[in-house]
Amino acid sequence: MYRSHTCGELNASHINTEVTLAGWVQKTRDKGFMIWVDLRDRYGITQLIFDEQRTAIDVFEKAKTLGREFVIQVKGTIIERESKNKNIATGDIEILVSELHILNEAKLPPFTIEDETDGGEDIRMKYRYLDIRRNPVKNNLLFRHNVAMEVRKYLSNQGFCEVETPYLIKSTPEGARDFVVPSRMNEGQFYALPQSPQTFKQLLMVGGMDKYFQIVKCFRDEDLRADRQPEFTQIDCEMAFVEQEDILNMFEGLTRHLLKEVKGLEVAKFPRITYDYAMKTYGNDKPDIRFGMKFGELNEVAQHKDFGVFNSAELVVGISVPGCASYTRKQIDELIDWVKRPQVGASGMVYCKYETDGSLKSSVDKFYDQEDLKKWAEVTGAQPGDLILVLSGPANKTRTQLSALRMELGNRLGLRKPEEFAPLWVVDFPLLEWDEESERYHAMHHPFTSPKPEDIHLIDSNPGAIRANAYDMVLNGNEIGGGSIRIHDKGLQAKMFELLGFTKEEAENQFGFLMNAFQFGAPPHGGLAFGLDRLVAILGGQETIRDFIAFPKNNNGRDVMIDAPSTIDVKQLDELHIQLK
Amino acid sequence: MYRSHTCGELNASHINTEVTLAGWVQKTRDKGFMIWVDLRDRYGITQLIFDEQRTAIDVFEKAKTLGREFVIQVKGTIIERESKNKNIATGDIEILVSELHILNEAKLPPFTIEDETDGGEDIRMKYRYLDIRRNPVKNNLLFRHNVAMEVRKYLSNQGFCEVETPYLIKSTPEGARDFVVPSRMNEGQFYALPQSPQTFKQLLMVGGMDKYFQIVKCFRDEDLRADRQPEFTQIDCEMAFVEQEDILNMFEGLTRHLLKEVKGLEVAKFPRITYDYAMKTYGNDKPDIRFGMKFGELNEVAQHKDFGVFNSAELVVGISVPGCASYTRKQIDELIDWVKRPQVGASGMVYCKYETDGSLKSSVDKFYDQEDLKKWAEVTGAQPGDLILVLSGPANKTRTQLSALRMELGNRLGLRKPEEFAPLWVVDFPLLEWDEESERYHAMHHPFTSPKPEDIHLIDSNPGAIRANAYDMVLNGNEIGGGSIRIHDKGLQAKMFELLGFTKEEAENQFGFLMNAFQFGAPPHGGLAFGLDRLVAILGGQETIRDFIAFPKNNNGRDVMIDAPSTIDVKQLDELHIQLK
Repeated sequence: MYRSHTCGELNASHINTEVTLAGWVQKTRDKGFMIWVDLRDRYGITQLIFDEQRTAIDVFEKAKTLGREFVIQVKGTIIERESKNKNIATGDIEILVSELHILNEAKLPPFTIEDETDGGEDIRMKYRYLDIRRNPVKNNLLFRHNVAMEVRKYLSNQGFCEVETPYLIKSTPEGARDFVVPSRMNEGQFYALPQSPQTFKQLLMVGGMDKYFQIVKCFRDEDLRADRQPEFTQIDCEMAFVEQEDILNMFEGLTRHLLKEVKGLEVAKFPRITYDYAMKTYGNDKPDIRFGMKFGELNEVAQHKDFGVFNSAELVVGISVPGCASYTRKQIDELIDWVKRPQVGASGMVYCKYETDGSLKSSVDKFYDQEDLKKWAEVTGAQPGDLILVLSGPANKTRTQLSALRMELGNRLGLRKPEEFAPLWVVDFPLLEWDEESERYHAMHHPFTSPKPEDIHLIDSNPGAIRANAYDMVLNGNEIGGGSIRIHDKGLQAKMFELLGFTKEEAENQFGFLMNAFQFGAPPHGGLAFGLDRLVAILGGQETIRDFIAFPKNNNGRDVMIDAPSTIDVKQLDELHIQLK
Repeated sequence: MYRSHTCGELNASHINTEVTLAGWVQKTRDKGFMIWVDLRDRYGITQLIFDEQRTAIDVFEKAKTLGREFVIQVKGTIIERESKNKNIATGDIEILVSELHILNEAKLPPFTIEDETDGGEDIRMKYRYLDIRRNPVKNNLLFRHNVAMEVRKYLSNQGFCEVETPYLIKSTPEGARDFVVPSRMNEGQFYALPQSPQTFKQLLMVGGMDKYFQIVKCFRDEDLRADRQPEFTQIDCEMAFVEQEDILNMFEGLTRHLLKEVKGLEVAKFPRITYDYAMKTYGNDKPDIRFGMKFGELNEVAQHKDFGVFNSAELVVGISVPGCASYTRKQIDELIDWVKRPQVGASGMVYCKYETDGSLKSSVDKFYDQEDLKKWAEVTGAQPGDLILVLSGPANKTRTQLSALRMELGNRLGLRKPEEFAPLWVVDFPLLEWDEESERYHAMHHPFTSPKPEDIHLIDSNPGAIRANAYDMVLNGNEIGGGSIRIHDKGLQAKMFELLGFTKEEAENQFGFLMNAFQFGAPPHGGLAFGLDRLVAILGGQETIRDFIAFPKNNNGRDVMIDAPSTIDVKQLDELHIQLK
């Protein structure tokens, strides 16, 4: 062992002890007759001292050669510091060094290894191994480990068995694009990397393994939007002989356990709201409920006056922004410009200030009197001092626009506090969504999701109205997990594939093994999957998943550190029976 | 919830309780006026009773329709059984059923769902979801989960951090063949699936994460020998600021923890033997030391007589087979035939019976007298009653042959007891091995393995003689883990690549990022990886890893259940910029 202690554990109680430490040179201060070195490892920083008086001359001279990030081993005695540093755990002591070994020299790193670094994203990714030396990144990785361990502990204690499902599976064109792997031994054939272990976990339920989980990498070859990764990690779970209520309780328990163990927070029972309610109240199926500004629908109170814009709109809907009646005309104009940006797309915005004196002042005063505006305040829940903002237009579009505005204001007003956690369930999702482009239904969740029994009668007459036994867990405006009760009946599953536009052959070819399995005694089952990357980021009080992944890829799907993907030998291609186009 | 209890937990203390159970029909016995059903779930079997007298007629009639593997839910009252079954936990009670719901019917399964099944390997793999319902397979999966959890607990408690390394990495032609993944976004380029996270874990050490582990899938596109899988799971570990001794102690501790927690066994400190000793004593670098039959080298005592076969041999080596002096001529001839099979390849075998009366009788009596043979007995450690078997020829080849014989006899004589565990370390492996075909050195472990400092001076003069700081953990005749202290010096690493026949460009192209990283302060580090599949199998008292993998592939790399790999759409190929040859 190169060390007797780490750089994070020594304090005044160790004074006069002889110790050996090893680590990286964080920085040196050379006063000529005295040299201080901050020695860093994963656990902290300990100050070393070399002193013309007390240090052997060769050791002292060697200390003068030390540069940033040199790897060294020192032996020495712990002494009390003259000027203590109360900011670090080891701040009361320093090591008077008697032996110094340079284990490895270091070139000057391309950015500073400090909590606040001068390195930009690109350079930090290229030298990710240096970036990981920085506390924020290192702590994120340790935090992630901690979360994963707590997930495993909780689920194991609840009787779940972690089962590893295969990575080399079969390509299914439904859903996102697969990454594929040419088979050398099976000419002309390809494996696919799993987008999720969905069918395998369902087969495990058929196999009687009634509580399954797995923390597992999944893969999607999609054009990467900001903060998406081609490979990502799921906490994948499934249970048999359960109803939706059982699953909600179990995984609410898991999330509550995590909040308690990794954040020290006790959270009450999670609210449950329907998809319809979420859309109407927040314009969003993953609402951030840490703050209010719930939607108030104003059709009844704002239409049939002389304001044509509202009268012709499918939906007139507003929010009350707390304490913002004092906004200047300029501030309000800026907000109006904000909603009119193409990313949001509103054509305009009406406002109404609910002054602290109880009067109401709107941008459409010529159409609405105080009595009318009072009703707006009632519907949006505005109090004196609040600012009411109103959008109108086609219902879905307008809700989405108002939701964007609500989130933006939540951010601006500091209502989205990173260390506050407000989880909830959104339930009763639609089973299907209509795709204008392909002119057919797509599964909103996935093709294995069970319709609500009471809605099944709509399957031929009005499939779009069928609600699913599907649910999402939402935390602070992010979907962190989602799942459903599955279909366990071969007939209903076949019907579902038909509804989704699969021919019988396609269904058989792609999912025959699952439908086959259903013939041999499939139990009722359901489950969900959490996105671990995002869950960890949110629990860590951040929203960028990249900061919680050791070696992430960039938006082109490249690992810039190892420079992958890369070309391969023609010989390799030949063996795989493929060639470049 | 479809049940109030599982099928494994009810006993006499629950009599008169009303319960709801759900599970699969294991079997039914219909006596006409009374029907018994064994209801099975993951946790056990509970007997149900339907009785013409006490059961409602519609329930009774429905019970008559139940077939094997139907999924049912029953409500009923726990009553005492008339004839108790002491073999199962629930054997004192049965459920008098009042309500019966058929949740799903089942076709007759293609093999019996019993501990001893009538299904062959192929059919069981095709219907693996049914195979998993069987106790032996189910218990293996639960056992595997248990082992993995204990690994994580132990390593976490020791301060290790599990870090997920990427699956989409870069192809390196060195080593085994890679599985590759064509990149859609980077035309003409490919990712590779990792054969191990070797370079990433070394980069984590450079990054200061001084104790890393990961339970991780790895991939090798090799022609599958029996019981190899294209995707397999490793417990991958690395530590910084350590010497070999620290690593041996840490992972000996892990293995001892596992043996204690999952097998209830306390194991003393592991023996450590050198590679040379292992080869000379067992003919094998992964010796099974649960039994003796150590090699005795007989050159000194058996050469220079008139027996030309021995005289001309590089090595004459024997083992003493305990208690087998009584073997008949026929038994011995069978053994001789066994070693002469092409799989073993010996040209003949000499034997010597050490009779219980102290006399020695050999197949080469005309060349050796009692005094000579006595020396054979001394060298091989034979006692009266033992049978000495001797092979001769080129040293390495002969050792391998005798090792095969030793293992065969260990099996035949019942000396390889599945529930006995004899772990050991084999250390001081050669750094390099000469490959006759390519006429160059290959890394025995991998190109990152550090030579022993005291052997480095041989690097130009006699590289084949350099020993490495490399070690294997061996358990019951299987290598379950292996690793090394790594090179952390850029210069030495470059020298190593040169020795292995890499051009500077190849080394730079493939491992430039690692050598680059070494310039920025790489700490001394080392680690190892365990093969989880095999470790679990051996701890489970078995040697077939396939039985411990939920969804294994066959020897052609196929998943016969989902029928993968398979063909993919031309559209998919087009998007990936590749075509079939």
